[in-house]
Amino acid sequence: MKSLNVAIVGISGYTGLELLRILTQHPVFNLRYVTSRKEAGKKIYEMYPELYNTRYGDLEIMNLELDLIKDECHLVFLAVPHGVSMDIVPKLLDSKIKIIDLSADFRLKSKEVYEDWYGLEHKSEELLKRSVYGLIEIYREKIKNADLVANPGCYPTSVILGLYPLLKEDLLYDNTVIIDSKSGTTGAGRTPKVTTLFCEVYDDFKPYNLKKHRHTPEIEQELSIIARKEIKVSFNPHLLPIDRGILSSMYVRLNAPLSEEKLHRLYLKYYSNEKWIRVLPPNVLPRLKGVRGTMFCDISVVVDTRTNITKIITAIDNLCRGASGQAVANANLMMNLEEDMGLEDLALVP
Amino acid sequence: MKSLNVAIVGISGYTGLELLRILTQHPVFNLRYVTSRKEAGKKIYEMYPELYNTRYGDLEIMNLELDLIKDECHLVFLAVPHGVSMDIVPKLLDSKIKIIDLSADFRLKSKEVYEDWYGLEHKSEELLKRSVYGLIEIYREKIKNADLVANPGCYPTSVILGLYPLLKEDLLYDNTVIIDSKSGTTGAGRTPKVTTLFCEVYDDFKPYNLKKHRHTPEIEQELSIIARKEIKVSFNPHLLPIDRGILSSMYVRLNAPLSEEKLHRLYLKYYSNEKWIRVLPPNVLPRLKGVRGTMFCDISVVVDTRTNITKIITAIDNLCRGASGQAVANANLMMNLEEDMGLEDLALVP
Amino acid sequence: MKSLNVAIVGISGYTGLELLRILTQHPVFNLRYVTSRKEAGKKIYEMYPELYNTRYGDLEIMNLELDLIKDECHLVFLAVPHGVSMDIVPKLLDSKIKIIDLSADFRLKSKEVYEDWYGLEHKSEELLKRSVYGLIEIYREKIKNADLVANPGCYPTSVILGLYPLLKEDLLYDNTVIIDSKSGTTGAGRTPKVTTLFCEVYDDFKPYNLKKHRHTPEIEQELSIIARKEIKVSFNPHLLPIDRGILSSMYVRLNAPLSEEKLHRLYLKYYSNEKWIRVLPPNVLPRLKGVRGTMFCDISVVVDTRTNITKIITAIDNLCRGASGQAVANANLMMNLEEDMGLEDLALVP
Amino acid sequence: MKSLNVAIVGISGYTGLELLRILTQHPVFNLRYVTSRKEAGKKIYEMYPELYNTRYGDLEIMNLELDLIKDECHLVFLAVPHGVSMDIVPKLLDSKIKIIDLSADFRLKSKEVYEDWYGLEHKSEELLKRSVYGLIEIYREKIKNADLVANPGCYPTSVILGLYPLLKEDLLYDNTVIIDSKSGTTGAGRTPKVTTLFCEVYDDFKPYNLKKHRHTPEIEQELSIIARKEIKVSFNPHLLPIDRGILSSMYVRLNAPLSEEKLHRLYLKYYSNEKWIRVLPPNVLPRLKGVRGTMFCDISVVVDTRTNITKIITAIDNLCRGASGQAVANANLMMNLEEDMGLEDLALVP
Repeated sequence: MKSLNVAIVGISGYTGLELLRILTQHPVFNLRYVTSRKEAGKKIYEMYPELYNTRYGDLEIMNLELDLIKDECHLVFLAVPHGVSMDIVPKLLDSKIKIIDLSADFRLKSKEVYEDWYGLEHKSEELLKRSVYGLIEIYREKIKNADLVANPGCYPTSVILGLYPLLKEDLLYDNTVIIDSKSGTTGAGRTPKVTTLFCEVYDDFKPYNLKKHRHTPEIEQELSIIARKEIKVSFNPHLLPIDRGILSSMYVRLNAPLSEEKLHRLYLKYYSNEKWIRVLPPNVLPRLKGVRGTMFCDISVVVDTRTNITKIITAIDNLCRGASGQAVANANLMMNLEEDMGLEDLALVP
Repeated sequence: MKSLNVAIVGISGYTGLELLRILTQHPVFNLRYVTSRKEAGKKIYEMYPELYNTRYGDLEIMNLELDLIKDECHLVFLAVPHGVSMDIVPKLLDSKIKIIDLSADFRLKSKEVYEDWYGLEHKSEELLKRSVYGLIEIYREKIKNADLVANPGCYPTSVILGLYPLLKEDLLYDNTVIIDSKSGTTGAGRTPKVTTLFCEVYDDFKPYNLKKHRHTPEIEQELSIIARKEIKVSFNPHLLPIDRGILSSMYVRLNAPLSEEKLHRLYLKYYSNEKWIRVLPPNVLPRLKGVRGTMFCDISVVVDTRTNITKIITAIDNLCRGASGQAVANANLMMNLEEDMGLEDLALVP
Repeated sequence: MKSLNVAIVGISGYTGLELLRILTQHPVFNLRYVTSRKEAGKKIYEMYPELYNTRYGDLEIMNLELDLIKDECHLVFLAVPHGVSMDIVPKLLDSKIKIIDLSADFRLKSKEVYEDWYGLEHKSEELLKRSVYGLIEIYREKIKNADLVANPGCYPTSVILGLYPLLKEDLLYDNTVIIDSKSGTTGAGRTPKVTTLFCEVYDDFKPYNLKKHRHTPEIEQELSIIARKEIKVSFNPHLLPIDRGILSSMYVRLNAPLSEEKLHRLYLKYYSNEKWIRVLPPNVLPRLKGVRGTMFCDISVVVDTRTNITKIITAIDNLCRGASGQAVANANLMMNLEEDMGLEDLALVP
Repeated sequence: MKSLNVAIVGISGYTGLELLRILTQHPVFNLRYVTSRKEAGKKIYEMYPELYNTRYGDLEIMNLELDLIKDECHLVFLAVPHGVSMDIVPKLLDSKIKIIDLSADFRLKSKEVYEDWYGLEHKSEELLKRSVYGLIEIYREKIKNADLVANPGCYPTSVILGLYPLLKEDLLYDNTVIIDSKSGTTGAGRTPKVTTLFCEVYDDFKPYNLKKHRHTPEIEQELSIIARKEIKVSFNPHLLPIDRGILSSMYVRLNAPLSEEKLHRLYLKYYSNEKWIRVLPPNVLPRLKGVRGTMFCDISVVVDTRTNITKIITAIDNLCRGASGQAVANANLMMNLEEDMGLEDLALVP
C-alpha cells in the first residue's frame, strides 16, 4: 500500500513517545517530521535511547515549521499542551492536511465551559463546532469525514465507554453518577515536578483534584449528548503507583431492577461487534495488566441485589487507548485505512 | 515498670509478623511464647531473618500448648485463621488470661450472619455477646474491662472511623453507603497462591469480590449500631500493587447541605482529642505513605457543591492500625497501660 | 503463506503464557494444541482472562496426547519443568515433528554435569549430542537443520552474548569471569511459594544462590566452546522487584589495554548485522525498560582506564529474548521462515 | 534528661526529611530551628503533610540565620548540597556549636581530589584535616571529641563496613576491588528532573555513572587508610526501582584461601560487639527490606571454592544508616549520649 506522510508536533511528552512507538509498527504511515522546541537538532534515539536502531531512531527532531508540514504531510498529530493547539490549528486548517489534536483545546463545544475549567481564553471558538470528538465506537462515521479530530481525554474514554449503553437506553434513576477512577502516573506528564518524582509516587496511593478536575466537563458534555439530557458526574481521580492504566468504577442506581444477565446482554448488544471493547464474561473483572499497551477497553457489569447498586467497571491503557493509540485509530479512519492498522498488540502479561 | 508476659498464637502470617515487630519495641510486654504448627522448633530468626540479633530473634517457636500459655501469660494474641479461634477461645476463657482475637470469629454478634458470610458453623455462639469489638475510639471503656476482644477487620476500621461522626449526628440522606476501598496485598495473607504471586500483582490494579466480601456484614453491623438504624453498604474492594495500606472513599448524600468548613468542624468535635485520628486540614488529602507502619487514621472530608456528593476519604496501614497495632493498643487498654505504649512510630516517608 | 500447525506442551507457566502472546501475533504458525495437566478442559481465556476475545482465547486446553501432536503438528514447544522434557522428547523424535525444548534437559552436553547440577538422572544421554543450543546469533546455521533445539536459559543468553566477541578474539587476561546479574521475578516461575509472593519481593532487592546456580555450567560450557579453552564464571544472581528483565554486568581484565573506542568497534564487527543485538553508542547504558517485551539484547562496553577493569553490560527481557521469543525465533529458523517473523515488537516505554 | 537544642539547615531534601522523622522520636534533642530558602514561612506540615499533628508539624521553617543557630543550639545538621557547606561551616566553627555536615564538602582529606571529582574550588582547605569522618564503628572515639563531623556518603558506608575486616587483616590479593552497588532512588535527591520521574524509574533497572562517580575517591581514601596502602575500586552503581536501600557486592580474591567458616569468624571478631552490624549466619543473605528505616548494616561473606572468588555483600538503608540516621548517631556521640538513642527502629517487613 502507498505510504502516507505524517508528522508529530511535540514529542517530548509521553503521548508523543507513545505515538513514536505505535507509528514504528504502522505499515502505511511514514513519519516525516517530528518537532520539539527543546530537543530540536537531536536525533530521536538521543532523546529516547530505547529507539536506537529502530525505524525512526535516526530521524532528526525539528523546530516547528508549519509550512513544511502542510506541504509534505497528509496528517499531523498535535501532542502539545492545552492552549498551544488552539494557536496551531487555525494555521493548518486552510490546507489539505488532516489534524488530530491530542490536547483538550477542541474537545469542549462551549467556549465558556472551556475557559471556566481551563482558565484560558479560547481563541478559536469557531472551530469548536467543526472538530469531531474522536471516540471511535460512538463517532466513527463522523471521524471518517473530519479534518479536525479532538482526541478524547484518557479518563473520559474510560467513563463514556462504560456508561454508553446505560445512557442510550435511558436506564439511570439518577442524573448524577459517582465515578471513582484510578490512573497510572504517565497521565501526569513528563514535565519534572516534585509531586511526580519516583520517591513521591512509589509505594503510595492517593486521591487528587477531588473538587475540580478538568476532565469533568468533557465527561458531562459527552454523557449528556448520549443521554439527551443533562448528566452530572462526581468525578474522583486517584494516582496509582504504576505507569500506565486507568480503572474507572461507576456506581449507579437504575430506574428499574435489571438482572446482571440482562445487563450483560444489553452491553453485548452495543459492543459485540466492537473488536476493542471486551464485555467480560460474568464473574471476570477487569485488571489493568490485561489492557496494558493495547486498545482494549475491558468492561464488567456487576449487579448487587442486596443494595440495588449497579457497578460498571472499565479498564484501559491511558497512553494507548486513552491517547496515542486512539489517535492512530482516528488517523486510520480519517485516511480510509483499516481502523486497527498498526494497533494489534496484545498486553504484556506479566 | 513490671513486665507482663504475652503470647502470640500463630506467627506464620503477616499479622503475626507485625505483632513481632511491634512487641520488640514494647517496654512492658514480654513475649513469652510464640507458636506455629508448621515452624515449631525453629528460632524466630530462622523464619524471619530480618529479626536476627533483635530482641526475640532467638526465641524458639513452639507447638500450641494452651496450658503453658494460660499459666504463664497475662494476655494472648490469636493470629490464626477464621474458624480456628472459636476452638481455642473457650479453652482459655476460664482462666485469668486476657484474649485478643485477630480473626473474625468473634466480631459478628449474630451466629446466623457469621455462618452465612463465612460458610462455617459457629461453635461458640454464647461468646459472641461477651466479646468486645476492639475499635479503640468507639469502645475504649468497654475494652478496658473486656477479657475477650475481637480485633476489628482492616477494611471495617477504615470505613467505620470515617463515617462515625456522620452517623452519630444522623446526617445521611440515604441508608446505603457506596464505599470504594483499595488495599495493599498484605491483606491477602501469606499463604502461597498464584493470585498473590509477585508477577500477578505487580504493575496491576483490579477490583475483587465485588459481590460478596466478608467484611461487609462487619461494617454494616457496626455502622447500624452507631446510627441506631439499619445501614447498608455497597462495599467494593480493590487490590493495590503495594504491600501495606488501605484507602477508603465513602460517597454519601447528606440530608441537608453542609459546608465543608462545618463538616470539618464536626469531625474535629469527635476526633480532636484522638491522637491517632488526624482530620486533615482543608485541601490536604490522605495518602497511604503518610500512615505506613503507624496507628494513624487520616481523614479528609470533601464537599462537592456542584453535585451535592460528600466524600469521606480515610487512609490507614492495614497491618498496623488495621490489625496488629490495633491489637497492641487493645492489649495496652486491657492491661491498664498507656494506650499508645510501643506504638509511637512515624511513617517512613519516602 | 501456508500456515503451519504448532503445539505448546505446558501452558501453566510464564514461558507458556509468553508463547501464547507471541503466537497470537504470528502470521504463519497456527496454534493447534495446548496442554496442561492441571487446567485440561478449560478454555485458554478461563485460565488467562486477558486473552478473552483474542485469537486463541477459546482454544481448549488438553491433556498431553503425544500421538495427536505428532500427527497434526509441524513443531512443538515444550514448556515443561526440567526432568519432564527428557521423558517426552524420545517419544517425539522418531516422527517428523521438530522440537524446541525450553527446559534445561538438553542444554548441557555432559550427562555428568547435568546430574551434578540438577540432581536428576538423565535418561536420554544419547540425545545430548544431537540437540542444538538455540542461541541464534551463534548457532544460526545449525539451528536451521536441527530437529531438536535446546532453548537457552535466560541468564546464559544475557551473559554469552555479552562475552562472545571478547572470547572469540581471545582477549581475556583471566579465565574466570565475575558476573553480577539481576533478574525480574518471572524467572522464578508461576508455582506458588512464599518466597515469590508479592509481599516478599516488592520493595526489596537481594542476591540468591550465590554458591550454586544451575545456569553456571550452561554458561561455562558455552563460553568454553567459544573460547576454545576452559572458562569459569563466578555467577551471582539477584532478584529484582519487577516482573521482566535481566541485566548482567561482566567485569573482566583484558590481556592488553584496549580503548573503549576500539572495543566498541570490535563489538560492532560481530554484531552490526544482527538486528536484535544493539551495541549502544558510547555513553549510553542499557536499561531493562528498553528491551521489555522484545528480542533485543542491548550491550554496552565500558573501559575504566583508572583501574583497567573492562565492563560489559547486557540487558534482555528474560521471558521474551531469554525464553519464549527466542524459542519462536528458533522455530522460524527451523521452519525456514524469516527469523524475526512475529517478533517485531518494540518495548513499551514507559 | 535535659533536652539539647539542635537545628537542621536545609530540610527540602530527603536527608532533611529523614532527620525530621528521626528527631521526632528522639528523647533528648529538641529541634529548635529548621531552615529552607524556598519554603521559609511555611509550617513543616504544610511542606510534609504526613507530619501533621506530630511533634514538629507546626514548627515554622526559617531562612538561614547563623547567629540565631549559634546562640541557641548545641548542634547543627547541615543537609545542604555539596559546595554550600564549605561556606557555612567556617562561620559556625568559631562558636561552641557542634556541626554535622551531611554533604561531601569535608569528607575528602585532599583539596585536589575534591576539586577533581566535584568540579568545585574548595574554599576551606584548612578544615579538611580538622573534620572527622563519621563512620561510627571505625572512628567512634574521634567522633566523641569532634566539633565537625563529615557524615559519610551512602555508598561508601555500605562498602567500607563490608571490607573493613579484610583490609585490617591485609587479606586482599589484589589492590583493586570490584564493587557492584545498587541503590534506591532517594539517593538521587528531591530536585525535580526527568530522569528521576516516577515513570522513568519504575519497572526499570539500570547502571549509571560507570566511569566516574563521586563516591569513588571517598571509598578509596578510607579503604587506603584502613589498609595502610593504596586501594583502588572499580565502583559500579545501579538505580533500583525502590525508594530506599543500598546493596553492595564486593568481589575479591584473597592472598590465601580462607574457608567461609573462618572468614565468618573473622568478621564476628570485628563486629560481634557492634549492635548495628549484623554478620548474618551462614547461608542467610542480606535483603534490602531487612534494613529499611534502620541503622543496620547486614553483611554476608560467601566463599566460592570453585572459582576462589570471595564475595562480601552488604545491605543498608541509604537514607537512615547511609545519611540521616548515621548523622543522629554521630550527634549522640558528640553530645555524650547513648549512641543508639532515638534509633531503635526495626525494619517494616513486609
